[in-house]
Amino acid sequence: MGRLTGGDPSLLRRINSAVVLHALRATDCATLTEITRVTGLSRPTVEGVVEGLIEAGLVVEKAAEEGAARRQGRPARRFRFRAEAGHLLGLEIGAHRVAALLSDLDGRVIGAQAREVPETAEADERLERLRGAVAELLRRAGVARGSLRAVGVATPGIVEADGTVRLGTALPGWTGLRLGERLSRSFKCPVLVENDANAAVVAEHWKGAATESDDVVFVLAGLSPGAGSLIGGRLHRGYGGAAGEIGALHLLGREVTPETLLSTTGEPLHPLDEQAVAGVFAQAREGDQRARAAVDRFLQRLVHDVAALVLALDPELVVVGGWAAGLDGVLGPLRQELARYCLRPPEVTLSGLGDAAVATGALRLALDHVEEQLFAVEQRPL
Amino acid sequence: MGRLTGGDPSLLRRINSAVVLHALRATDCATLTEITRVTGLSRPTVEGVVEGLIEAGLVVEKAAEEGAARRQGRPARRFRFRAEAGHLLGLEIGAHRVAALLSDLDGRVIGAQAREVPETAEADERLERLRGAVAELLRRAGVARGSLRAVGVATPGIVEADGTVRLGTALPGWTGLRLGERLSRSFKCPVLVENDANAAVVAEHWKGAATESDDVVFVLAGLSPGAGSLIGGRLHRGYGGAAGEIGALHLLGREVTPETLLSTTGEPLHPLDEQAVAGVFAQAREGDQRARAAVDRFLQRLVHDVAALVLALDPELVVVGGWAAGLDGVLGPLRQELARYCLRPPEVTLSGLGDAAVATGALRLALDHVEEQLFAVEQRPL
Repeated sequence: MGRLTGGDPSLLRRINSAVVLHALRATDCATLTEITRVTGLSRPTVEGVVEGLIEAGLVVEKAAEEGAARRQGRPARRFRFRAEAGHLLGLEIGAHRVAALLSDLDGRVIGAQAREVPETAEADERLERLRGAVAELLRRAGVARGSLRAVGVATPGIVEADGTVRLGTALPGWTGLRLGERLSRSFKCPVLVENDANAAVVAEHWKGAATESDDVVFVLAGLSPGAGSLIGGRLHRGYGGAAGEIGALHLLGREVTPETLLSTTGEPLHPLDEQAVAGVFAQAREGDQRARAAVDRFLQRLVHDVAALVLALDPELVVVGGWAAGLDGVLGPLRQELARYCLRPPEVTLSGLGDAAVATGALRLALDHVEEQLFAVEQRPL
Repeated sequence: MGRLTGGDPSLLRRINSAVVLHALRATDCATLTEITRVTGLSRPTVEGVVEGLIEAGLVVEKAAEEGAARRQGRPARRFRFRAEAGHLLGLEIGAHRVAALLSDLDGRVIGAQAREVPETAEADERLERLRGAVAELLRRAGVARGSLRAVGVATPGIVEADGTVRLGTALPGWTGLRLGERLSRSFKCPVLVENDANAAVVAEHWKGAATESDDVVFVLAGLSPGAGSLIGGRLHRGYGGAAGEIGALHLLGREVTPETLLSTTGEPLHPLDEQAVAGVFAQAREGDQRARAAVDRFLQRLVHDVAALVLALDPELVVVGGWAAGLDGVLGPLRQELARYCLRPPEVTLSGLGDAAVATGALRLALDHVEEQLFAVEQRPL
């Protein structure tokens, strides 16, 4: 039950500060009068808060940057949020590559770096490759490591709240890896670890194919297919972080793995051989009968998995990424079959971010964390 | 963004009133001193609020009921919440029966009534049967219709927010029925309509098999199987109210309906013939080979559907109700298969409420509504 308490001065200061930052961040720059009007705070309060934010390096007076005022008379002082006051990283650790995105505090991407990794690489080697990519990215962008405010990391597998990979069969040595702790050694700021499909749905909602919907299922189609879901705009991780791991419906205890479905020879493909998979897709496009049959088997399975997700969750929108985003004509059969299976068929669309979805989602999670710290107006019962 | 506003006196009165009611409702009865201590409100505020609640009929002085005080000296006045100040109905409209539960404002059930309905009954007849059951229930309990504060109704099908059945294939004439509006004609209080499996999961969480978990999938196994889910303690309806309608995974465009799976003759059972179904289960228990094979097929399908729900949602707990709750040995295979399929297998248990789950959930939804009106301490940004 909510207790009715008196005001807490330090809490009030934090809230006022967040309110002013939020207002400044929403505009290019603003005068004290404008901030006062938008926030509903008193002029002296706004002045005090802005002064504190300037001291903290988060706000700067615009005239001070631009030199002397050009207009006649004494112009009103203008202030802007210093998005360059800190930086964020969005990292992807996949089976074949590691990737890193660097942004400012507004989430504007100012650099990207990717490196290939052998699918057989053990955890140490994979993490070393990632550290190398990050170091090069920071060096090229001229950003000091100390400027990083948060790092988001996305990877296949079930990720626990503390950043440990509970189960990750796609990457060697991944199950049980304390990924958050390992990466924290390289950074002084918080490191947030998330499942790759979960990161991808966050990314599509931020700047991809799902910006208009809060109830979204993102399907990361691949040899380890998975899904991430937003419910009412919030990431649904599940009780144990395993929500959306729909691929297991066929993977465990059955022979109908994607490697088998996609084989044109009867022999299953290598579980992580995405080039062989791309080859089958290419052959199918060229009209090869066996390849076309293999792709049809794969699509049928994908439709079934997506139908299961849709029936369980009833999203407004399904976004398809991973391989399937590269498949010609995957949307047609998916829409057709979902309309048959589902009592209320969702919209179906392709990823708007492609390969960048997972790292972009990791970046957004880092940005969410920083926004919570800097800008959140705390919600609490009266 | 939260605006920092001054106090709103009428809002504050409502909040204080809710806080006091909440405190009184949590105890048998309490003195003004006790209420003051528990709520953190001032003594004069508590006195004013209690006076208002007595006028509204929601609170009564205990001594006033019990006659003169028996102890020496002047005893402290004690107050209690009048749970009898209003009543609630929880209604179930099913294929074969309608059922009604009556409770006081604490949700304590004080009467129940059920009537059979032919499965072929059209909507008008079905609703008339329900109205008859309600009238008899109120008469027997001696509760005036005007005492009802909210009515919850649960029924198969996809239910829209306004109480319209968007799609309901299990009951004749159900699709498109403005069920909430139709029933509102019989009551002066709010009528809330919900899907039956959704109501059941709420009921199991309230007083059934799921009281210890906030992340629950309830599977209503039957010829129109469906599921209801709680995520973080809140009902997950889905974007269009269709979440959990997993039965459609096999029903649409395929021949593997439960009626076919459960047939021992090759001819599908009648879609709503639950007696025939019960017959197959009984034969299987008696060792009939064909019946056993039919039940095995049904269980295999149930496991697949439940696995799909579990993989999509990752609940802590799966509660099985409907027919399957009456099946011997359904839990064993379910647990075994979920452990094979699911990366993080949930606990699996049978319904704790059986036949009463759906109507009990409808009652709880009515109670939720009244509690929001009477007891909710509003959550809003500072």
